[in-house]
Amino acid sequence: MKDKAIFYHAGCPVCVDAERQLADALDRNRFDVESVHLGQEAGRIADAEAAGVKSVPAVVLAGQPFHINFGAALSDLK
Amino acid sequence: MKDKAIFYHAGCPVCVDAERQLADALDRNRFDVESVHLGQEAGRIADAEAAGVKSVPAVVLAGQPFHINFGAALSDLK
Repeated sequence: MKDKAIFYHAGCPVCVDAERQLADALDRNRFDVESVHLGQEAGRIADAEAAGVKSVPAVVLAGQPFHINFGAALSDLK
Repeated sequence: MKDKAIFYHAGCPVCVDAERQLADALDRNRFDVESVHLGQEAGRIADAEAAGVKSVPAVVLAGQPFHINFGAALSDLK
């Protein structure tokens, strides 16, 4: 069964770079990669917070949050 | 031809988590992944700096640096 990878972003330049390079580099044979734009899907912010995400871009791999560089704080997206 | 992915770390707990999860999640069919312990290979710190790495853990994907969470500043490893 594939693990879930959720890439959270907000459309910022730092986010776009991270998505094109890092999220895209994940092994699709092992991960179902979902990309969530928290600026457009504000209803998912609570999910991101519950997973420990503090800023975007970030990727949650099998439940564990990894913040990638820094684009925007989650609190600024509310 | 595969792109080069260099994962820089310093053996810190945050680094180990990032290596086990994120570096390990990269697609080996597309990336040659090298792991460099800057605490043990201080001679590579200049390479990391030249690639734009400011802190560890970080991964340089095809020349572009992505800082993953925060373990230690590069300046603290010198």
